[in-house]
Amino acid sequence: MNKVGIVGYGITPFTKDDKKIESILIDSVKELFKNNSDINRNDVDAVLVSTNNNSKYLSPILSEMIGIQPKIAHSIENLCNSGTNSIVSAYSYIASGLADMVLVSGAERYDSPGSVLEWDVSRGEYKHPIFWSSIFTKSYKRKYNISEERLSMVSVKNHKQAKENPNALSNRVFTIGDVINSKQLTDDLRLLDCSRPCTGSASIILGTEEKVKKLSKEPIWITGIGQKTTSAGFTKNISFTSMDSTKQAVDTALKMSKKTITNIDVVELHDAFSVCEPLALESLGFSEDGTGVDLVKELYDTNNFKINPRGGLIGCGHPLGATGIAQTIEITQQLQSNANKRQVDNAKVGLIHNMSAAATSSTVLILEK
Amino acid sequence: MNKVGIVGYGITPFTKDDKKIESILIDSVKELFKNNSDINRNDVDAVLVSTNNNSKYLSPILSEMIGIQPKIAHSIENLCNSGTNSIVSAYSYIASGLADMVLVSGAERYDSPGSVLEWDVSRGEYKHPIFWSSIFTKSYKRKYNISEERLSMVSVKNHKQAKENPNALSNRVFTIGDVINSKQLTDDLRLLDCSRPCTGSASIILGTEEKVKKLSKEPIWITGIGQKTTSAGFTKNISFTSMDSTKQAVDTALKMSKKTITNIDVVELHDAFSVCEPLALESLGFSEDGTGVDLVKELYDTNNFKINPRGGLIGCGHPLGATGIAQTIEITQQLQSNANKRQVDNAKVGLIHNMSAAATSSTVLILEK
Repeated sequence: MNKVGIVGYGITPFTKDDKKIESILIDSVKELFKNNSDINRNDVDAVLVSTNNNSKYLSPILSEMIGIQPKIAHSIENLCNSGTNSIVSAYSYIASGLADMVLVSGAERYDSPGSVLEWDVSRGEYKHPIFWSSIFTKSYKRKYNISEERLSMVSVKNHKQAKENPNALSNRVFTIGDVINSKQLTDDLRLLDCSRPCTGSASIILGTEEKVKKLSKEPIWITGIGQKTTSAGFTKNISFTSMDSTKQAVDTALKMSKKTITNIDVVELHDAFSVCEPLALESLGFSEDGTGVDLVKELYDTNNFKINPRGGLIGCGHPLGATGIAQTIEITQQLQSNANKRQVDNAKVGLIHNMSAAATSSTVLILEK
Repeated sequence: MNKVGIVGYGITPFTKDDKKIESILIDSVKELFKNNSDINRNDVDAVLVSTNNNSKYLSPILSEMIGIQPKIAHSIENLCNSGTNSIVSAYSYIASGLADMVLVSGAERYDSPGSVLEWDVSRGEYKHPIFWSSIFTKSYKRKYNISEERLSMVSVKNHKQAKENPNALSNRVFTIGDVINSKQLTDDLRLLDCSRPCTGSASIILGTEEKVKKLSKEPIWITGIGQKTTSAGFTKNISFTSMDSTKQAVDTALKMSKKTITNIDVVELHDAFSVCEPLALESLGFSEDGTGVDLVKELYDTNNFKINPRGGLIGCGHPLGATGIAQTIEITQQLQSNANKRQVDNAKVGLIHNMSAAATSSTVLILEK
């Protein structure tokens, strides 16, 4: 299989702006080409658009706007992990030899139709994600005797880290008291436990070994890929206190990269809600079951940005189609020692965890210097 | 690059039925597994859904319905050539080694939101495809002095061929007079010159060389792939009397397969409107410029089903996300000598041409025994 790495990237601030999807998309691509003036855009032979937006033909539209005529051009959707699905697809186009450089652009509006899974009507009105996350939260707290205060630390930590990220939706810090006293949405969920849909875009160009070595000053390689879909409706999940698809995805990704979880220096994981961070830490293998919240507190107390340095979905906002790409950009910046105040010391191997719909599907990527 | 071939396929009748997209999708997958009982569905490690439907997360939904847990799962959209984009993506997953068997399922409802390109508003109200096809038709007729009667032969031929296809939307034959006297939609377009959006689905499983040899009685291989996007809005087309993206795509596909156009025995091409068939025949290299209509007449007169044996989009109907997959299934059946009354003699090499939005993007595939 051909080696695949990262040639360049661009990202926009995450906002609540009311802009057309085409304008959102082009913003991060402009940023990408501004940051990487050595890239000849005519050498981009595939353009993949990651979005839940209902507009059609967005890849040819984006291509026309940036003045290129790619071979491969289409949109990819899989709710919240559309971004990493698109990156894996780009990887396969390059690894197979069908393309040498692939632009992957993710974009979403704050009012994305992907924010609610309309199909999952088995629970009547309860199809909004806050209901599955409430069930996860109640189950997790009950099984491991976790208090509201301990779980709130996820939001406190991630908002603190987002404050060092100029593109994050939030630039405020909060106390445990602020989180607990924020608006109550369900029995077990407060407003500050939730990531917020927002407007934003993130673009990345992947390339062959030759392109990466020629065009990137600090090559970063995708060395591990793992994906798993266990179901669509979350009521098919075996457990509400772990993420089965994540467990299978991380196992595959680590094997492919010949790494163990102890080799991982920095992580972007999918904290759609507070409870998702300890669940993901445990399912990825960073913590024993029921102890993910302790790791979160330890990292906060020691000012260690290892987990979700950009502020996670809770701090950054969650423009669905862009999230997995923004996560990948953050890990790339970390491995390039280019993450400013968010920089994790001596980061050589990074992991991205991106999931959809109550972890019914997960993607895990391993990136290395 | 690993060799990629066709393991099995299933297709539904094309209708005007008002069914949910999930039900439409599952119908062709059921047909596929009924026709190929040797396939262990747990060995399917990727599920790609090709559609313009606005429903989200359709690949995990389909996977759950058929009882499998794939690694890779997402939807792909690129208007009318979503189907062949999905097949090429499946090819790349297999050729790169990320998957061994990929299910590609295309489905659409008769009221697909992809039937009109909302973005292409440069011509005010004239964003419906009948307007670009009218401009193409007027340009083509004028440049080569082609009469309405000669062009109508496309619809006459393809309806005749569709009559031998039990899955086609149309089962009627028409005369040139019928076409010319059908409802006038624009100066240059009659109702019977148009393919019709419809409800239907088509599914295909691609696999590695090992899987194909083990599971298919008559292996068919994808030996050539060419794709090109020239723009999104059709007014950027260089010419209204040829298909530039098609010319570039066929050139790439033939080179990859080490074939010339004279080696092609049977063809599915994208006759969204009557004028598209001679334009595609000329751009693919089967006819000199301005003579595609003569080839159409010759084939009709000699009862030769070489071009669009299943009846084309005009005869079959056009369920956008399913069309490219249905075309690929037809060519597979032809090469397997399994096309019943539509069978072309001694078909060894086949070509699929699938395009979107006034040929602003095209895919060409070459299939071989």
